[in-house]
Amino acid sequence: MDADQLAQACAQQMFSHDNVSRAMGMNVEHMACRQSEVTMRVTAEMLNGHQTCHGGKIFCLADSAFAFACNSENESAVASACSIDFLRPARENDLLTARAFVMHQGRRTGIYNVSITNQNQELVAIFKGNSARLNQAVLPQDQRSDS
Amino acid sequence: MDADQLAQACAQQMFSHDNVSRAMGMNVEHMACRQSEVTMRVTAEMLNGHQTCHGGKIFCLADSAFAFACNSENESAVASACSIDFLRPARENDLLTARAFVMHQGRRTGIYNVSITNQNQELVAIFKGNSARLNQAVLPQDQRSDS
Amino acid sequence: MDADQLAQACAQQMFSHDNVSRAMGMNVEHMACRQSEVTMRVTAEMLNGHQTCHGGKIFCLADSAFAFACNSENESAVASACSIDFLRPARENDLLTARAFVMHQGRRTGIYNVSITNQNQELVAIFKGNSARLNQAVLPQDQRSDS
Amino acid sequence: MDADQLAQACAQQMFSHDNVSRAMGMNVEHMACRQSEVTMRVTAEMLNGHQTCHGGKIFCLADSAFAFACNSENESAVASACSIDFLRPARENDLLTARAFVMHQGRRTGIYNVSITNQNQELVAIFKGNSARLNQAVLPQDQRSDS
Repeated sequence: MDADQLAQACAQQMFSHDNVSRAMGMNVEHMACRQSEVTMRVTAEMLNGHQTCHGGKIFCLADSAFAFACNSENESAVASACSIDFLRPARENDLLTARAFVMHQGRRTGIYNVSITNQNQELVAIFKGNSARLNQAVLPQDQRSDS
Repeated sequence: MDADQLAQACAQQMFSHDNVSRAMGMNVEHMACRQSEVTMRVTAEMLNGHQTCHGGKIFCLADSAFAFACNSENESAVASACSIDFLRPARENDLLTARAFVMHQGRRTGIYNVSITNQNQELVAIFKGNSARLNQAVLPQDQRSDS
Repeated sequence: MDADQLAQACAQQMFSHDNVSRAMGMNVEHMACRQSEVTMRVTAEMLNGHQTCHGGKIFCLADSAFAFACNSENESAVASACSIDFLRPARENDLLTARAFVMHQGRRTGIYNVSITNQNQELVAIFKGNSARLNQAVLPQDQRSDS
Repeated sequence: MDADQLAQACAQQMFSHDNVSRAMGMNVEHMACRQSEVTMRVTAEMLNGHQTCHGGKIFCLADSAFAFACNSENESAVASACSIDFLRPARENDLLTARAFVMHQGRRTGIYNVSITNQNQELVAIFKGNSARLNQAVLPQDQRSDS
């Protein structure tokens, strides 16, 4: 496996165990080393009283894209801190795309940025995530031995 | 209505229109002017692959507590930015409590802190939210005229 | 030494080696365990083109108060991340007070908040600092053996 | 003037009134629309007790690069919030380069990222700035009428 194939295998493994992302209808569109692209359509259940998408739902999308990117080297990592700026409301049926990319990855900690855009390429939110590695693999033993 | 009663009426109005918070089983335990306390139990559907509560779910709880606090004066406000530090994992059946309090409230923008603790009073996360008022009321006209 | 005396000794030790804080005219007004209060007067050299205090100078004041607070238990710690919200400009001759207090202190990492107010008790900025301990003492050996 | 020449004129105007940046020995290396590159050498006076560059000094460098970038369209803007992650210490005589680039610029508010690297292209810190426009020009009237 090369680095991008490893990234895809890690995302597949994580996504298959991530009920939250699947229940929200997320889709992993693209994976590469320390990068990801994840989409989600805004449904009626995601709306708040202003009839716009709940900020927590946009955060979840960004957080998932961040998780796939910072786990893409088969080193299990969790979020230690995140921040998000909300720039424009998202509305029912909008198709949101979160693109995560690395800013810094050290031996143990990393920093990733995620942009969230709608179907008109308008920026909906900007997210930053700090990750910390756990010193364990993402992939199960047998899958790793294939690589 | 005094300030705390107004805060309660605003939270009631918001919560009744907030499908996301209700669907997650949140409960508004206490409201006062620029303050709130909201609880949520971690369910199986909230777990990630590490069998701990998805960070996005903890964010949603904090975000709701923040929203109730920054809308508590019957001035509709939205989040412009949020940040969260994750300090300790939350596990299935944990009862999380988010307590929001004001750091700053100007004419238009505000800053609120939210602590998220578990049933053992251990700190699970710290959240900060920046709010921006929209120049409209939270309560419908008839309810305001009662006040 | 009790915890507050230890905090004072640590701040004294740090301040005597901190040319930056002394050159800016900072003064440590009060120290306690995981808390500090530091003042600084805004001078002409601190002004930017808008004739208000440079944001970096306000940051330095907050950062010093944070440093004294997160080093107050004789465990040397450095900042891993900081954030600041600027709420109101500071002007020449304003006397700024930074008050740092702990939000969380674990075995290794901590989170501290700092409020920066002017002489009219108006909030100028809000600062949050994340600290990481270095596994070394603040005080030199001989001073510690006294305690 | 094209957009990049305007950016250079704005930076020149600001720098000539910014005693803080000049006193710290900063140098504007490159300006373009919504982008800047600023260098600073770490001097003995910038060191803290650990003999590494004071975090506040690194913040000041990043903050200046941010200011030049968010004022580069001749619309005066100030910082409303900033955050910084410290990744690696800077030492005496290190030559730091701050590169600011736009993430988002709306009618009134903007978000800019700044990377701070040393002379070995190692990342020292990552900075994010939120800006708010003031509805006034950066350049004096006569200079603008030339454009």
